[in-house]
Parts: sequence; C-alpha cells; structure tokens
Amino acid sequence: MAMTTGHTGAIRATKVIGTSVYNPSGDKIGKVEDVVLDKTSNNIMFAVVGFGGFLGMNEKFHPLPWSTLDYQKGHDGYVVNMTKEQLQAAPSDGINELTRGDGNSALRDEVYDYYKAPRYWQ
Amino acid sequence: MAMTTGHTGAIRATKVIGTSVYNPSGDKIGKVEDVVLDKTSNNIMFAVVGFGGFLGMNEKFHPLPWSTLDYQKGHDGYVVNMTKEQLQAAPSDGINELTRGDGNSALRDEVYDYYKAPRYWQ
Repeated sequence: MAMTTGHTGAIRATKVIGTSVYNPSGDKIGKVEDVVLDKTSNNIMFAVVGFGGFLGMNEKFHPLPWSTLDYQKGHDGYVVNMTKEQLQAAPSDGINELTRGDGNSALRDEVYDYYKAPRYWQ
Repeated sequence: MAMTTGHTGAIRATKVIGTSVYNPSGDKIGKVEDVVLDKTSNNIMFAVVGFGGFLGMNEKFHPLPWSTLDYQKGHDGYVVNMTKEQLQAAPSDGINELTRGDGNSALRDEVYDYYKAPRYWQ
C-alpha cells in the first residue's frame, strides 16, 4: 500500500522492551532494555539495547536509533546489521546516563551520526 | 535554548507507562497503559490511556497523541486539557484493537483529527 494512504505498522512499547536482538548471522547478542522518547517532539529518540554478554561490557548500554532495529518474524526479534567490532566502537554508557530527563543532545547527535541514521531534529 | 542547538528532553517508556493522568482541575482521571510506536517511521503513534473509573467505561482505552500529554512536575503526572464530555466523545476501543500490529491507519487519522494534533505522516 502506498505511504499516502496512511498504511503503517504499530507496536506497543511493552512488547518492544525485552525483545531479543540478533546479529545478521542469527546469534542472539542482546535485548532491548527500554525505549527513550523525545519529550519535545513526536519522536522516538532511541532504543536502549544491552549487549553486555556479547560485547563483554556488563555495565554499558547502547543507544540505537529506531531505524537500525529491523524486526524479523523468523527470529521473533530485531536484527542489527552491525559487526561486533562496529558495536564495540559505538556510543555506549550507563542506562541512567542514556536516559537523563534533560535529554543529552550531544549524545543523540553522536548516536545518529555513528549509525548514519537520518536526524529528526533541525 | 533554541531548537536549532538540539536542546531536548527525554523520558523512558518504562517511566511513562503507569504514570497518572490528571484533568486541569487536578483530579486524577486515569493512567498511561502503554505507548504505541510506529514501526515504519521514527514516530510515537499515540499513548494508550485508561480512563475506566473516571468515564465509567471499564473496558475501553483512549489513544492520545503524544502532544496532548502535558507533563507537570507538580502533579508528577500528565495533564490532559479536556473536559469529561470531550473525553467521553473521543475515540476509544479495547487495548488489543488499539495496538494491532498491522497499524490501524483509519483510527490514527481519526485520533489526530479529534485532538487537532499535527499529523506526522503524509
């Protein structure tokens, strides 16, 4: 269906949270811990994904733009099309730092640039 | 700070869910049950708010555009600037119908029109 007819897809945040994340080879590498919403626009700021065991960084979480999470029914989870090395080099921080209420716009800029995701802000 | 500098505010979906909703008089009238995300864009489709006790409709939930929820620290919750009559006449449905995975674009159109919220889609 064409975009102009308003076709869309919807998912509840409570279903996204806890969903497994896989690499393109089909290995489970993490899970979605939370979704951070922008208070001042209608946008999803990013998903917070924990790759602790896979990347060997137990205390760190990765902010991923929503567009980088490709839901695949076969996996019943999201596939992230990145290598281990790319994820290890990606922005990461503690979950409290990533979800600061005042919004960390420098972090947001860095994240969208790293994943080459289109910015939703001016 | 000007919008062009990227100032923003952020909130975790897990904090939004369960947050109380008040009317402008300060009465607690409901709570956020879930947040529905658009799978095909970077947008928040709507929040699902339960007004069961207040509106006397125990099985119905209301989809509200994100922009209609005004967070107020004094209440530690969201204020919805609508009368009881306006909410009773607003679109509502069962939570499963509101959160269908294929996305209900007719419902979405109706909701944004009812609350006069700007559409994020073409």
